[in-house]
Amino acid sequence: MIGLSSYAGVMESLVNSAEDQQRSSPLGNSWSKKEDLNRNQGLKGVGGFVLVHAGAGYHSESKAKEYKHVCKRACQRAVDRLKAGALAVEAVAAALVELEDSPFTNAGLGSNLNLSGEIECDASIMDGKSLQFGAVGAISGIKNPVLVANCLLSEAQKGKLSAGRIPPCFLVGRGANEWAISHGIPPCPSEKMTTKFSLSAYKRNKRKMEVAEKMNTGHNQTKKIRLSAENDSGCLDTVGAVVVDLEGNVAAAVSSGGLAMKHPGRVGQAAHYGCGCWAQNACNMNPYATAVSTSGCGEHLIRTMLARDCSAAMQSEDAHQALLEAMQNKFISSPFLASEDCVLGGVIVLRCCRCVEAQNIQGILVEFLWSHTTESMCVGYMSAQDSKAKTHISRLPPGTVPGQSLAIEGGVCRLMSVAE
Amino acid sequence: MIGLSSYAGVMESLVNSAEDQQRSSPLGNSWSKKEDLNRNQGLKGVGGFVLVHAGAGYHSESKAKEYKHVCKRACQRAVDRLKAGALAVEAVAAALVELEDSPFTNAGLGSNLNLSGEIECDASIMDGKSLQFGAVGAISGIKNPVLVANCLLSEAQKGKLSAGRIPPCFLVGRGANEWAISHGIPPCPSEKMTTKFSLSAYKRNKRKMEVAEKMNTGHNQTKKIRLSAENDSGCLDTVGAVVVDLEGNVAAAVSSGGLAMKHPGRVGQAAHYGCGCWAQNACNMNPYATAVSTSGCGEHLIRTMLARDCSAAMQSEDAHQALLEAMQNKFISSPFLASEDCVLGGVIVLRCCRCVEAQNIQGILVEFLWSHTTESMCVGYMSAQDSKAKTHISRLPPGTVPGQSLAIEGGVCRLMSVAE
Repeated sequence: MIGLSSYAGVMESLVNSAEDQQRSSPLGNSWSKKEDLNRNQGLKGVGGFVLVHAGAGYHSESKAKEYKHVCKRACQRAVDRLKAGALAVEAVAAALVELEDSPFTNAGLGSNLNLSGEIECDASIMDGKSLQFGAVGAISGIKNPVLVANCLLSEAQKGKLSAGRIPPCFLVGRGANEWAISHGIPPCPSEKMTTKFSLSAYKRNKRKMEVAEKMNTGHNQTKKIRLSAENDSGCLDTVGAVVVDLEGNVAAAVSSGGLAMKHPGRVGQAAHYGCGCWAQNACNMNPYATAVSTSGCGEHLIRTMLARDCSAAMQSEDAHQALLEAMQNKFISSPFLASEDCVLGGVIVLRCCRCVEAQNIQGILVEFLWSHTTESMCVGYMSAQDSKAKTHISRLPPGTVPGQSLAIEGGVCRLMSVAE
Repeated sequence: MIGLSSYAGVMESLVNSAEDQQRSSPLGNSWSKKEDLNRNQGLKGVGGFVLVHAGAGYHSESKAKEYKHVCKRACQRAVDRLKAGALAVEAVAAALVELEDSPFTNAGLGSNLNLSGEIECDASIMDGKSLQFGAVGAISGIKNPVLVANCLLSEAQKGKLSAGRIPPCFLVGRGANEWAISHGIPPCPSEKMTTKFSLSAYKRNKRKMEVAEKMNTGHNQTKKIRLSAENDSGCLDTVGAVVVDLEGNVAAAVSSGGLAMKHPGRVGQAAHYGCGCWAQNACNMNPYATAVSTSGCGEHLIRTMLARDCSAAMQSEDAHQALLEAMQNKFISSPFLASEDCVLGGVIVLRCCRCVEAQNIQGILVEFLWSHTTESMCVGYMSAQDSKAKTHISRLPPGTVPGQSLAIEGGVCRLMSVAE
């Protein structure tokens, strides 16, 4: 039995609010009016939509405000880039930088510390237009891992290296750090990336582990003490974003400090192709452009390849039903996680298709959704026509069990596109 | 236009040879005879089939003998384990150890050196029964990376770590090395893993790169000098194996030293979930158990997720046709590699289903295939009923172009299984 947030109701309200925003924006209600064509032409290739998340995990009421703030700023950053004519992939990277720079998220600055008290980050980015992908795993000493992933992506687009060598799409550890610095990304001392908060969480977790290990040694049958999802370690707060630009290109990115107290060298889904993010433009075979970014327990998201599978599912007619079934069948009930009693994760999803608004005016219909099996998930979204981002902390329906139930919500938005 | 090795002919001859072997083996022609039932019962749970590869790349005639030898030994190692009652996953690890220990393959001992002259290996293993996966990337100082991957897999099966931490399935770099040693896998000094051969290839490649970079600096339009697939660096000779045991469990593994002169920290498909290997037992939804291991250019194999896609394709009726279409549509013509002029890779594939041989006697029908777009691919295969392994160097049909054409060959084998 799955617990479900009332999707229809929220969808309706989001649709309404998106429409409200359109009405209040200078161009919002002008799509069907021929006299506005010139103004639309002025928008040619500029605009788009962004959806971000600050992690699927547990967001206490006290922290909710900060999480919402950072989501808002991340949306604004992406929209600023889109308005400046950037493609989706550049805008998604800009959103990620903002999310990484917040000391509250588990990515970049303020990331969880590993067993040795070090920060090792994972990040990846995918461009739905070129289908190129870049990723870094267990990278230290770089403030914005997503920029290294993005740099790998753009370097790969330049073709082969000297002597015909194939450029890498995935670098890890010290080699990734050296590559980043040699490509002009500034190093950042680890101590500057550690926050008071992450350090005190580390010390608390270390004590818990020591107690747990002592108890396990003393009484082998003693129930293991958990680093609960409700603790302050923000252990699942991976961040991510999905973007569509006015040309209909999609992009997705994800960044994470990984699980608290992870073994050094552990790489989670955020660096894993098909698992952390996915973006694919529409093409002959796929009527919809889709972009997905995931959050949650890395090992669960790797073994289910959740980003790619959600993306593939979104080609079927009903977006909400498709995501619901994907989350249920390919995640909670996945045969790959049959041995797990608690399957923790969340996704944000975009799917877009072109639609004709009026004669000579094309639009892009954007359906955006999020779904999670964790207690809560913090999201933000904004179109380039909006004056500010909307944010929302989605929570599991009361009485349902994290890891076994899911929430699913979303909305729709229409983007004006170039005049033909 | 695709070049194809004559599949039907080879298939036929392999079928014949497999049958010949069965005829010459003590139990080979006894499946339909009731009086042999007791002997069959003696085989309960012991037996199986292994298919290995020593890389898709270029195998000169002079090196062919060595490659065939190591494939033969790897098959024997797996069959020895199967006969001792091991499950598929243990047998596949044993085959990989043999392949890694050969100084001729680009895995473990004798791996390609990276830009800094160091060895950094990738390896992964997947168990089709538990669907667990273990992988290491860019690991140094360990003779058999596959054993670390296998240890990660078995540790994950034991459940959560102290304080409820989720065990890692993927470790990289120094952290992977430390984890291995703390789990009883002995370290091996890098100098012991470097061979005369790999060191001289490194020096030669280094000189070529320097010349190429000088030329590129001098004349920007000068055609880049390639590290050709025909050089001695064995730059694509990843190794791998797929196994089915008599219970019908499948497993797959892959191991690689990575591309010659790769950037330190670069991780290729051999460590990447869904890209290097895949194994999935038969279940309600999948009538066939399938196992796949890949070889070739890591970046191409990552971006196409070739192992998982080939495995999924093998659920359709005609195994040969399914693999042919997968290699053509999901690899050579993949939209994910649209910008590549030359798509280099190879796969070995097993698929198995139960069949009734006679009253009270079950068998497993094993279809095994290999396909590659590289010049050549060296494979070996053996059933536990065979006295020795068969080996084969598959080559592209004359006149066809590597990276744009493919060869596909294979055979079938019937395994006796437990009496009901």
